Amino acid sequence: MAPRKQQQIFDTTLTMLAETGYDRLTIEGVAERSGVNKTTLYRWWPSKAALVANALIEARALEFAVPDTGSLEGDLTELASRIAALLTTSPSGDIAVAALAASAGHPELATSVRGFFADRLARERPIFERAAARGELAPDTDLMTIVDLIAGAIWLRVVFRGLPADSAFVSHIVQTVLRGICR
Amino acid sequence: MAPRKQQQIFDTTLTMLAETGYDRLTIEGVAERSGVNKTTLYRWWPSKAALVANALIEARALEFAVPDTGSLEGDLTELASRIAALLTTSPSGDIAVAALAASAGHPELATSVRGFFADRLARERPIFERAAARGELAPDTDLMTIVDLIAGAIWLRVVFRGLPADSAFVSHIVQTVLRGICR
Repeated sequence: MAPRKQQQIFDTTLTMLAETGYDRLTIEGVAERSGVNKTTLYRWWPSKAALVANALIEARALEFAVPDTGSLEGDLTELASRIAALLTTSPSGDIAVAALAASAGHPELATSVRGFFADRLARERPIFERAAARGELAPDTDLMTIVDLIAGAIWLRVVFRGLPADSAFVSHIVQTVLRGICR
Repeated sequence: MAPRKQQQIFDTTLTMLAETGYDRLTIEGVAERSGVNKTTLYRWWPSKAALVANALIEARALEFAVPDTGSLEGDLTELASRIAALLTTSPSGDIAVAALAASAGHPELATSVRGFFADRLARERPIFERAAARGELAPDTDLMTIVDLIAGAIWLRVVFRGLPADSAFVSHIVQTVLRGICR
């Protein structure tokens, strides 16, 4: 399948997930809306779960470039700003919340969400490798915890509390975590 | 209504929320399962949203006592352990995730979830007041950010990643945040 067509299918899948929820999402519906034969879709993705899992990781709608600003603080501040932007703009914020919401009752989707977060962590790893190479970070630093503190605080503030994550908040949490990991 | 009866209604409400989701939850269903006349329920809670909002804050299922161990680190470690336990045991974990999941498509439930988190922060405030009185914390410390970092990291680790939040992880995030807020 042409990459452009595949991207369109992924974006359609996630848009429909945000609109209708996982229960009402069907491969037939995605086929119809993206103008692709449903047998073609089934050949590429044997199940709705497989399609959503692939879309979560590959769709442009949830994409963000990993920053490279020249400093760990710069990179983490930019990363945190992009996570905040992703959660507070449409359709990405609705997609993220819908995927998480649906994973509550669907173990196969929970597996996809875990895959999404693992993929994100793998993509963010160069930030920490560059920081270690610059001597800004001990090589044995626990990256997942740094990401969980920063991304978790943004999720809680934005999605659970419904409060803004402005640049002052983003800088504050990044600086707190950075002071916290320096010994 | 007798407090014991009210508690039973709240617990039934949240258990059914976790089991069936918000869409299929009805005041009639709660009435039937808790053996209370539905008109009685409607007299106390005019809507499903009002009942759930009240239940989230008052139900024993989501209750946790705010710790008082004598030190800020002890209190926050205990608080974080209790949040981790709440998210990883049944039915409280299922309830928390179901409430959050349903708030995605229901603005009135999102308001209840925000109320729940605001109520929790208010209950946690004495931890920080005692710490400030002991000289462990600057009086102008941003409490919400401390809670968001700690609770957010636990949510992300446990609910989004499906990984355990063991005592080593809990201690690690609390110590990181505490080092981060000390200047």
